[in-house]
Amino acid sequence: MSAENQYTIAETIKLLSDKAGIKTVCHQQHEGSPLPSVPVLEEIVTIARSIIFPGYFGNSSVNIHNLNYHIGLSVEKLFGLLTEQILAGLCFDREDNLEDAFCHKQAKELATKFIARMPHLREVLTTDVVAAYNGDPAAKSYGEVIFCYPAIRAISNYRVAHALLLLGVPLIPRIITEMAHSETGIDIHPGATIGEYFTIDHGTGVVIGETAIIGNNVKLYQGVTLGAKSFPLDEKGNPIKGIDRHPILEDEVIVYSNASILGRVTIGRGAVIGGNIWIENDVPAGAKILQKK
Amino acid sequence: MSAENQYTIAETIKLLSDKAGIKTVCHQQHEGSPLPSVPVLEEIVTIARSIIFPGYFGNSSVNIHNLNYHIGLSVEKLFGLLTEQILAGLCFDREDNLEDAFCHKQAKELATKFIARMPHLREVLTTDVVAAYNGDPAAKSYGEVIFCYPAIRAISNYRVAHALLLLGVPLIPRIITEMAHSETGIDIHPGATIGEYFTIDHGTGVVIGETAIIGNNVKLYQGVTLGAKSFPLDEKGNPIKGIDRHPILEDEVIVYSNASILGRVTIGRGAVIGGNIWIENDVPAGAKILQKK
Amino acid sequence: MSAENQYTIAETIKLLSDKAGIKTVCHQQHEGSPLPSVPVLEEIVTIARSIIFPGYFGNSSVNIHNLNYHIGLSVEKLFGLLTEQILAGLCFDREDNLEDAFCHKQAKELATKFIARMPHLREVLTTDVVAAYNGDPAAKSYGEVIFCYPAIRAISNYRVAHALLLLGVPLIPRIITEMAHSETGIDIHPGATIGEYFTIDHGTGVVIGETAIIGNNVKLYQGVTLGAKSFPLDEKGNPIKGIDRHPILEDEVIVYSNASILGRVTIGRGAVIGGNIWIENDVPAGAKILQKK
Amino acid sequence: MSAENQYTIAETIKLLSDKAGIKTVCHQQHEGSPLPSVPVLEEIVTIARSIIFPGYFGNSSVNIHNLNYHIGLSVEKLFGLLTEQILAGLCFDREDNLEDAFCHKQAKELATKFIARMPHLREVLTTDVVAAYNGDPAAKSYGEVIFCYPAIRAISNYRVAHALLLLGVPLIPRIITEMAHSETGIDIHPGATIGEYFTIDHGTGVVIGETAIIGNNVKLYQGVTLGAKSFPLDEKGNPIKGIDRHPILEDEVIVYSNASILGRVTIGRGAVIGGNIWIENDVPAGAKILQKK
Amino acid sequence: MSAENQYTIAETIKLLSDKAGIKTVCHQQHEGSPLPSVPVLEEIVTIARSIIFPGYFGNSSVNIHNLNYHIGLSVEKLFGLLTEQILAGLCFDREDNLEDAFCHKQAKELATKFIARMPHLREVLTTDVVAAYNGDPAAKSYGEVIFCYPAIRAISNYRVAHALLLLGVPLIPRIITEMAHSETGIDIHPGATIGEYFTIDHGTGVVIGETAIIGNNVKLYQGVTLGAKSFPLDEKGNPIKGIDRHPILEDEVIVYSNASILGRVTIGRGAVIGGNIWIENDVPAGAKILQKK
Amino acid sequence: MSAENQYTIAETIKLLSDKAGIKTVCHQQHEGSPLPSVPVLEEIVTIARSIIFPGYFGNSSVNIHNLNYHIGLSVEKLFGLLTEQILAGLCFDREDNLEDAFCHKQAKELATKFIARMPHLREVLTTDVVAAYNGDPAAKSYGEVIFCYPAIRAISNYRVAHALLLLGVPLIPRIITEMAHSETGIDIHPGATIGEYFTIDHGTGVVIGETAIIGNNVKLYQGVTLGAKSFPLDEKGNPIKGIDRHPILEDEVIVYSNASILGRVTIGRGAVIGGNIWIENDVPAGAKILQKK
Repeated sequence: MSAENQYTIAETIKLLSDKAGIKTVCHQQHEGSPLPSVPVLEEIVTIARSIIFPGYFGNSSVNIHNLNYHIGLSVEKLFGLLTEQILAGLCFDREDNLEDAFCHKQAKELATKFIARMPHLREVLTTDVVAAYNGDPAAKSYGEVIFCYPAIRAISNYRVAHALLLLGVPLIPRIITEMAHSETGIDIHPGATIGEYFTIDHGTGVVIGETAIIGNNVKLYQGVTLGAKSFPLDEKGNPIKGIDRHPILEDEVIVYSNASILGRVTIGRGAVIGGNIWIENDVPAGAKILQKK
Repeated sequence: MSAENQYTIAETIKLLSDKAGIKTVCHQQHEGSPLPSVPVLEEIVTIARSIIFPGYFGNSSVNIHNLNYHIGLSVEKLFGLLTEQILAGLCFDREDNLEDAFCHKQAKELATKFIARMPHLREVLTTDVVAAYNGDPAAKSYGEVIFCYPAIRAISNYRVAHALLLLGVPLIPRIITEMAHSETGIDIHPGATIGEYFTIDHGTGVVIGETAIIGNNVKLYQGVTLGAKSFPLDEKGNPIKGIDRHPILEDEVIVYSNASILGRVTIGRGAVIGGNIWIENDVPAGAKILQKK
Repeated sequence: MSAENQYTIAETIKLLSDKAGIKTVCHQQHEGSPLPSVPVLEEIVTIARSIIFPGYFGNSSVNIHNLNYHIGLSVEKLFGLLTEQILAGLCFDREDNLEDAFCHKQAKELATKFIARMPHLREVLTTDVVAAYNGDPAAKSYGEVIFCYPAIRAISNYRVAHALLLLGVPLIPRIITEMAHSETGIDIHPGATIGEYFTIDHGTGVVIGETAIIGNNVKLYQGVTLGAKSFPLDEKGNPIKGIDRHPILEDEVIVYSNASILGRVTIGRGAVIGGNIWIENDVPAGAKILQKK
Repeated sequence: MSAENQYTIAETIKLLSDKAGIKTVCHQQHEGSPLPSVPVLEEIVTIARSIIFPGYFGNSSVNIHNLNYHIGLSVEKLFGLLTEQILAGLCFDREDNLEDAFCHKQAKELATKFIARMPHLREVLTTDVVAAYNGDPAAKSYGEVIFCYPAIRAISNYRVAHALLLLGVPLIPRIITEMAHSETGIDIHPGATIGEYFTIDHGTGVVIGETAIIGNNVKLYQGVTLGAKSFPLDEKGNPIKGIDRHPILEDEVIVYSNASILGRVTIGRGAVIGGNIWIENDVPAGAKILQKK
Repeated sequence: MSAENQYTIAETIKLLSDKAGIKTVCHQQHEGSPLPSVPVLEEIVTIARSIIFPGYFGNSSVNIHNLNYHIGLSVEKLFGLLTEQILAGLCFDREDNLEDAFCHKQAKELATKFIARMPHLREVLTTDVVAAYNGDPAAKSYGEVIFCYPAIRAISNYRVAHALLLLGVPLIPRIITEMAHSETGIDIHPGATIGEYFTIDHGTGVVIGETAIIGNNVKLYQGVTLGAKSFPLDEKGNPIKGIDRHPILEDEVIVYSNASILGRVTIGRGAVIGGNIWIENDVPAGAKILQKK
Repeated sequence: MSAENQYTIAETIKLLSDKAGIKTVCHQQHEGSPLPSVPVLEEIVTIARSIIFPGYFGNSSVNIHNLNYHIGLSVEKLFGLLTEQILAGLCFDREDNLEDAFCHKQAKELATKFIARMPHLREVLTTDVVAAYNGDPAAKSYGEVIFCYPAIRAISNYRVAHALLLLGVPLIPRIITEMAHSETGIDIHPGATIGEYFTIDHGTGVVIGETAIIGNNVKLYQGVTLGAKSFPLDEKGNPIKGIDRHPILEDEVIVYSNASILGRVTIGRGAVIGGNIWIENDVPAGAKILQKK
């Protein structure tokens, strides 16, 4: 390297290490605490899926004789990794006056509560698999749906993340749904509330906002947005956080591809929303709304 | 861990290991058989791409003197991995009365037939590269198109998957196209029929259904859906599988971004479909259909 | 393997190794030069992000005492990897009359210039983080935005790639933005020009073309296309490369989901473009354009 | 690379690929069969050790509640890997008239029989641990002995290998003892017969030949050889294979460092052999043989 | 697998999981604590060596400009890993009444003290490198000695382990010297006391016992044992732990290959011990002891 | 971490980064050049072995049809890696006035010459395999000898290293023989000269010095030293480098375990040297020398 290049690089390092300039973008994790880790969270989701859908992922040898060994060790491993990541979430914006021992204990409590919730997660996800199979003429078996449908991947991550969010775990739920967003193009905020037998066909481009509420037996197609229309601003001109601002879809609603439903509107039971349209008002139960030609 | 947590976890493991409750979601692969594996299938696709487009992927040393060594070993490796994954597909929903030896032999036959098809795959994919280059003012060279255009990735996976599907391989073709769906946001069902010089610009959100038929020299933009309109139901109210229900696009058709074409309609030769619109009827050859304002 | 299969495979290898047939699809990198490598470029982007946003990625131990060690070694590692990949780009379509030593020297120069640009990149990306936080009621902290918002990932890759493109590095910038396209569904061409405080909500399906120009404080929603309308053709009927053909968005513009803006049109300061619409003409400053019902 | 170098390399490849010249040194494994694999055998030994000594290797979470999950899954994994490697051994010098199905079945049988032998292996290895602890004033705990004494590593590998050899598994046992030889410098042929409470101090350079017989409570020091003196030759002048040619050490014998005991001699119960000496004759029970000065 | 095999394996798992039978061989680490880990300790030794001998291991880019970045981050990484492994050692045979927080604090203290000792370790190891270079006509440079002489590897591990042992760290020091024993065949107990300018030629088979004391400028050849002669037994017939029982070698002593020196004897300053002999008595300063013929 | 610990560590980093104190132990590789790398050299040896003994290592699919593909690609890979490591060796103590381009060219020349030597290496190593098989009653097949005899590993590394040393490659040959020394306990200096049909039984502790000369059909047992007796000193009291100082063994010599032969003595054709003895004088042809009792 030329002396000139070497000088340029040394000067740049000084600029980049200047503590004054990086308050917004520099994070200092509580000393000795783990950072949230996308690879670890991917392992957590993989293990959770192998517990919920035994025999599909990673191990061809699951059978009647050894199922409990597999479940037993997987739950144990999940507990360890999840405790670490919950702790990472708790420490991310941690108040300074909390004690280490308290956070560790809390992380273990929350991981235990999540695991206790897993039989319920399996029940609900089973309804989603049934809905995807029944709703798609191209689906050949439950196995194909579980193994390769992106909707199942996205909904699994959402249901895991939603359970963690209900337990009060910060940050981690959003990372988990963003992982599925990256893989599937389906963006479900972990705060959304979604019923049973939920399915999404193809899925790329679907957006489901933080305060959306979805009933049972709802089906969405690719590109559907359940979004916010406009945000009330606070006195500084910034959006006020946490207000109900996304749609409510009652049971049996179908929304076709690329439709956008915006704001705290209610789509009534059994309504059908056609593709490529833009809805900002309530839709009565049983209505069919189509793009004008 | 507290005794209470330990008890909760032990009880949850019992619930999750209960054989009665998991018929739908538990898979038991035929004993000793491989499971379909996404990482192995990714390796298969990578090897297939390095055979079809020599010198682009993984090895800078391909030249006139050693091309046949590279092709020779890559084909050999492809044969081994593909045989294993075809076997995994054959065993996924396998009839119990088949013999192991028969399945192994069949997997080798099918892998051989796929390899014999690869010179043809290279020919057709070459036309797709030419089409992408010619159709995009931003494309700098064939090399750039092969190396980084998502459309080439998605179409390569589709053409490999379609060839396997025509040979009767179950499950594996769909996993291969879903891999590309995840990477590119382009969802092409392996059952679709697609001609030469096919290209997709940008591509995120494109959906091409199982029974779609696409001619030569067709170009799609991002967000285009070639979907099904409604499904005839059987006596139980479930969609009937396997009916022709997706569009036919004749040669030279262009479809702009976010357009949806639904049902078994025919878009005639040379027609142009404008963006963000919704087509449920035949379009005559040469027509231009645009969004109303 | 049966003798027949073995014969088929051997014959196919011969066909696939035939030099005559593979001119378009076979690449021969300049001997001894590196190939562009997606995994290496991913490492480069990861290191660049860890320098720009210290403490978020990979290492929980960054603090006031050791920040300069981390920055120092990361910059050194970045310099080495980037030099190699710039060289790979320079060699990809290299003129034969260049000397190895010249290319190596040029690669080091360009890598140094890129590193000297990093303090500026950090400043601009900080404005993007602030914009994403202020514009999203669901955002809980700057940290959450940096850690898991796909828009930050896509815009980071774009800003890195754009800086490399301005330095004249071939191929590599496009690979870097396609990496983000694959992860986020957001497709920003590295040639686009984008101001400060830029944000994209959700993002899947966004397309920003090569010659687009975007001012400060602009916000896009998912599925927005800033595309080209039609391409002037040369005498052979192919699109002419390099013509200005994408929109100009002035400061403070908002474009809602799935809107398409096509051609070299100007969207005036503060205009709001509603969702699911199709714009092919200039829009005056302050206008609000919505889908007709 | 210069044209001359390229030519030299191409010619050398031809020479090295000449089938005529490589009969002795080229191995062609039965088609489709696995090769013996040192990394897989290392994994097998690691798993076997983690079953025999639970809680020491790889997993800090073994406890009363989950011991059976760990043992259950480890045995299952051991069965799979061991079956494959036994098959590799069976195929290494395989008669051509055996059928694949027969070999697979035999490999599973032998792996099962080995596993059934593991409780006994644990019992005997426990006596070796006790002997090492009692015999070494530097040993702080059983745990230290199990965790880091090379003698335990070498004797474990020997006992595993010997059990496989008694079942008739070819090749694999020798590879397993050579793995320990490489790690510890202790070379125990898997054919040797060794009693309980066996220990070796330090161990580097110890050699125990194929037909050696060692009683209970025997202790060897580093550099001890229990070897063959001379070999009867067959009519071609080559050593006759398989003749008893190594020493017998009765119970309670101690042999000090670098002593060599050669030929089918018997060292009587409780005898002590001093260091650096050379024994070619029987030694009576209770004798003490020391180097002359 | 046959039903019979399956039954056999299931029964064996039960036997192997029987808690009653495995008291000696089953370890239960204090809950939540790390286990000692050979791979982590290998990383620790590698980092320590890269700090002590900068530029030799793993990174070709160390130079005057960046030395302090490398040292800074390496020390930080060493601190983290070493703290964890010291904690693992402290917990291995831990008293139940210690508190977690106390152990964590102690581990950090000890890791800090070790790091503070590293400049001294570098000084002493530099004398060992000089001694190896000066003493071996085959040595071409200090670099060759540092890079590939097994004696330097073994002595480095010993000096690191001895420093940890002096700080009171249990178990870990012995594992570190056994790692070098495995790699080099040189077995130095971490408890031994060794002066400056120490060297070992070739080294395989060297044994240096726990209570040995070695002066400055001592040279040993391969196969040398500095061992114990016999052990006083306690009332149960077991060796009494911790008694001085190994030789003292004064400054300038040379011991040739395969010599054994046993018991608490003193080899006087400048004495030369010939190869393949057996010493159980004091040797006066300046004496030359050779094997009798 | 406490403030006191933090201070201690920061001060230690300063001490360790002090440039003045580390001249002997700090290496600064020529900028931009590779460092010698043990993992890369292990890969080189593995590839060389898979070329010399096709079908034994890593790949079960070598057969008559594909042998030349395997050899072709392996030689190509070997050329690349070896060129890099030869360059690393050339740069290790490089004179400053050499130009980069010259060193690169020289490295390629030397790698080519080594490859041209490989057919000869295979011929000689085949004689070593035959000798090991014929000389050991425990050997079951040539395959067992090639696959798991440590002598073949050590002699392979020696013959590869010796060929490189004859070509004038610095440093790398010694690293390669030390790798085998670590694995097998057999320490053969790459400068030694060794004839055909050479074998070593068991091998741990064997030392063969830099200027030793060994004829054809020689057999050594474990623990044998062919060493130097004393070194002429230069005026500073250091050993003079490069003088002939190790034994000559003529054809058909056998040396039994733990014998030491020291100095430039000649052991005549067919002589037999008994175990555990110490030879410092010539031995006539056909003599048998045994330990006195």
